[in-house]
Order: sequence, then C-alpha cells, then structure tokens
Amino acid sequence: MKFEITILGSSSATPIFNRNPSAQLLNINEKFFLVDCGEGTQQQMLRYGLKAQRIDDIFISHLHGDHYLGLVGLLSSLHLNGRTKPMNIYAPAALQEILEVNFKHSQTELRYPLNFQPTDPEKSTTIFENYDVVVSTIPLAHRIPCTGFKFSGKKRLPKMIREKVDELNIPVEQISLIKRGFPFTDHKGKIHGSSQLTTEPDKPKAYAYCSDTICDWNYIDLIENVDVLYHEATFMHDMVDRASETFHTTSLQAAQVALKANAERLLIGHFSARYRELEPVLAEAKSLFPNTFLATEGSVFRL
Amino acid sequence: MKFEITILGSSSATPIFNRNPSAQLLNINEKFFLVDCGEGTQQQMLRYGLKAQRIDDIFISHLHGDHYLGLVGLLSSLHLNGRTKPMNIYAPAALQEILEVNFKHSQTELRYPLNFQPTDPEKSTTIFENYDVVVSTIPLAHRIPCTGFKFSGKKRLPKMIREKVDELNIPVEQISLIKRGFPFTDHKGKIHGSSQLTTEPDKPKAYAYCSDTICDWNYIDLIENVDVLYHEATFMHDMVDRASETFHTTSLQAAQVALKANAERLLIGHFSARYRELEPVLAEAKSLFPNTFLATEGSVFRL
Repeated sequence: MKFEITILGSSSATPIFNRNPSAQLLNINEKFFLVDCGEGTQQQMLRYGLKAQRIDDIFISHLHGDHYLGLVGLLSSLHLNGRTKPMNIYAPAALQEILEVNFKHSQTELRYPLNFQPTDPEKSTTIFENYDVVVSTIPLAHRIPCTGFKFSGKKRLPKMIREKVDELNIPVEQISLIKRGFPFTDHKGKIHGSSQLTTEPDKPKAYAYCSDTICDWNYIDLIENVDVLYHEATFMHDMVDRASETFHTTSLQAAQVALKANAERLLIGHFSARYRELEPVLAEAKSLFPNTFLATEGSVFRL
Repeated sequence: MKFEITILGSSSATPIFNRNPSAQLLNINEKFFLVDCGEGTQQQMLRYGLKAQRIDDIFISHLHGDHYLGLVGLLSSLHLNGRTKPMNIYAPAALQEILEVNFKHSQTELRYPLNFQPTDPEKSTTIFENYDVVVSTIPLAHRIPCTGFKFSGKKRLPKMIREKVDELNIPVEQISLIKRGFPFTDHKGKIHGSSQLTTEPDKPKAYAYCSDTICDWNYIDLIENVDVLYHEATFMHDMVDRASETFHTTSLQAAQVALKANAERLLIGHFSARYRELEPVLAEAKSLFPNTFLATEGSVFRL
C-alpha cells in the first residue's frame, strides 16, 4: 500500500527565499491528505505537479499564519476550477470564523460543501477513518491551541501465497474468502486451511506529524513506535532557552523525542530563518538519532 | 526622481506555476509603496531582494483573495522581524475585520501601529500625499467594491543651470532660494533673475493602476495622460463575453483604454491561467497600442 509524504514547506514563521511555510501532502493508497497549509501551498503543489483537486481532507495543526494562510487561496482556487465534491477540514474551531470572514467579503459562495470538524486541543481523539487509515490528534503544547496528527495504517488482510494459488488452481472469486479465514476445498476434495495458503500481511505503517510544540514529552505515548516521525526543529540546541520561550523544539530535542518514542525514522522541519544552511541542524539530530532526514521542499518519503 | 515599478505577480484568481497573484512594489524617490498583496507576495519580495521593512504604505484594490491574501503573512513577518514604525493600509473597509480575525486567533499583538484608512469605492479621493507624490483612488466596476490607484508625482522646483552656478560662483545656501524664485546678486552687484539661472523641472510623472474592472470607460478621465497605465487584461478579446460576465477586461480593451486615456505606455497583467504563453495576449494589445508591455514577475518599469 502506498504511504508517501511530500514536503511542501520547511520554514517557520518568517519565510526565507526557497523555503515555504509548513505544508505536507500525504498519499495513502491514492487518497490524498493535506497537513497544514501555509501561504503559497497551492503554488508549491503546482511546482511539484500535485493535483489539489485530489485532496478530500485537510488537517490544520494550529492558527499561526505559517500553518494555515494558504488555505483560503487553495479553497478559492478549487472553487474557481469547478470542484463540486465536499472538502473536509479538521482544524481548531476558530478557523471556521476566519474562513467565513474571508469568503463573506470576497462574496464567494463555494460550489462545494465544506465540512468543518473542530479538533480538541486537550485530548487525543480519532477524527478520520477509512478502509486504509485512522487519523488521530496529538495534543501539543504551543502558545495557542495546537494538535499534531497521527496517520495509522490499518492491518491489511493476509497475502495469498502465489505458488499455492497456481498449484491448487484457486479461482479468483475464492481469494477474498480465503484471505478472510475461510478454508478452500480443492478439486480432489482436500481442505486447505486459510493459514496454509496465506502469509501475514505487511505490518501497518504509522506516521506522526508534530508541529509546533515545546518539547514536554507529554505526547510521547501517542507517537510510540511510528515508522516515521515528523517533528519540528525550529532551533539548534544552543538556543534551547529561546526554543522554550517560544514553545518550540531544538533539533537535538527532536532526536530525543524520536529515540524515546522508538520511532524508526525522523524527519525534521519548521526551520528558523536564521539557518541559511541546514546541514548543521541535521548533524545535530543525527548525532543522537542517525536515521534523521531534512524535510525540505520537494522531498518525498515513503513508508 | 526615481519612479520605479517592480511587478511581483501577474496571475488572476487561480495561479499557475511561475505566476503569482497581483502585487507591485513602487519606489518613488526611495519611498516604497505596495499595491495589492496576493498570496506569496512576501516570498516574491525575497526572490527579488526587495526589503519589505521599507514599505510604509500598502494599497489594496479589493477583497478578492488574489489581491490581499498575502497581507496577513507579510504583516506578521514584519512584526516577527522587529518592526516598530507604523504601517498605513488603504483598502476597502472590510479588510480591517479580516485582519482582526486573523490576528485574534493567532494571538498576535503587532509591535507596530497599523493605521487603517478605508477607501471609498464610489468616488475618487486623495488618500495619500507627501513631498513627492499624491495618491488618489480610481473607482472601478468589479463584482465587489474595487478601486485602482493613481500615483501623481508633484511638480518639482526648477533645476539650476550648472554653468551659471560655476560662472557666478553661487553659494550653496542660495540655491534653494533661487529655485524658489528669488533673484541672485553676484559679487559685482549685478542682479540675476531666477529664471536666468534655472531651467524648467522635469514634467511630473503619473502612474495609474487599474485592476480589476469591467471595461466601462467611466474611469478614463481619472487616468488621462498618465505616463504609465497598468491595466488588467484577464482575457483575450475572443472571450469578451466571458470578460464582461466576470467584470474583467480583455487585452484589446486595455489597449482601447490606454488609447482613449492618451497614456504613454501600457502595462498589462492579471492574466487568466488559460494563457500559458503570453505573447498572443501582448500581440493583441500591441495591434492597437504598440507601446504595451507584459507586467510579468520581476519586470521593472521606470517612469
């Protein structure tokens, strides 16, 4: 099952040239999820040839401008380009007022339904579920209400053993039943248990998005054992005091979180404009957690 | 006197890659004015090495997103980067509510005063004046209240004739008086009239910005004889019906306006995303008004 993250922005509040504010596009089995939508997100999608019309669900962590200011423009463009299918938005409740005020004054009546689901910044809840994935919130500690999001792939059905299918000439209409545990009777009348014909499915994948937050460890149990953890790393650790004051995390702290949560891979982003070069920021995290990568514009990570 | 226009965006409502929504930076004698502020304007300024902190006055034509959605991000970045000097905004009254709602929910208290001056979409008024320039509004006919802006350079003092200054050894402290019409008495006691020592100043320059509008000719008298006219040209003339329906102008109509207003030069912009190539759009305007230019990203026009 495809589980792919495309990074659209890696900057924190003040952009620098060639870094855009936060936004990520997830493709989970050809269903597209947008996570945060900083200013310029629709342009970034054009840059990377990604189709905004394929997005049905948008997740906004919090209402600092670098995480949502691209949303009105994106929603307007979808409207102008003829969208009719609903769009679901999961975000702090106050975003609804912001959207309404903008659309009121531009006299925009969206041609498609906007389903708004407010997130609860106090406790983790499941906010989305389909056949492939469950999305739950990760309450974070920032200056204003903020949640991360965890995308947990669901356990798949067992996989058929190809050789058995050929050997026993199993008809295609039986496959789905066998995967669900039913036995198969071959043409000689011999019964084969489901477990003899199948192998365990791939372990479900999980991705956690944590931006923005002070490094307070309270969310560790919500992100344990994820395959990929995206964590903000606004500052380097020589500025740990500044990070705490502004409710942000250092690169070293992001690595500590990944280690403590037993994540397999760490992506860092949301870099302060002071870091023109990001190699030192990466090196700091890698010193503790070697499997760390820069979540910079255009990078694609596959789970 | 420097009078320079840098184009930051040339797209209409739905962006295409490499075209940004409307924004222009004017440098009039080292005073900086931002005209419209579509999404991504602050990034465009970074791209072209322009300093947003130098802007003291922002003019917003109307509240369609492609003309103002970059404003909250820009104002926030100026705040985060330590601005303390006031910012003046001239815009439709409703923009104030949009700004307030955004800043309320991000809990942003700007460190600098925001002086908001609502524009009147019904009649032309003078909204700004300094030593060099007067700015007045141009009421336009769009789907929602909209004004263009005319920047009229003021008449300068006469220019000293360099040879006379040298010949008569005119002291520097006399220059300002002579320019203002006082006579000069040389060391032999001979009186020289101001007009013998000076030449006429350059003709004041004027720039008109007209976006967005249906081509209804009502604003022609407000833009007569400008040196440079920027006019929206969302469509080509084969789509004149669509242009009228959406209260926009065609490239040919923009040329007709320039001709009728006796403008010296025409800049066209606000191009529909349907035009990947802009040469045909330009050719259409040039067929009627040869002194036409594409106002595309990064272009600089000097008056």
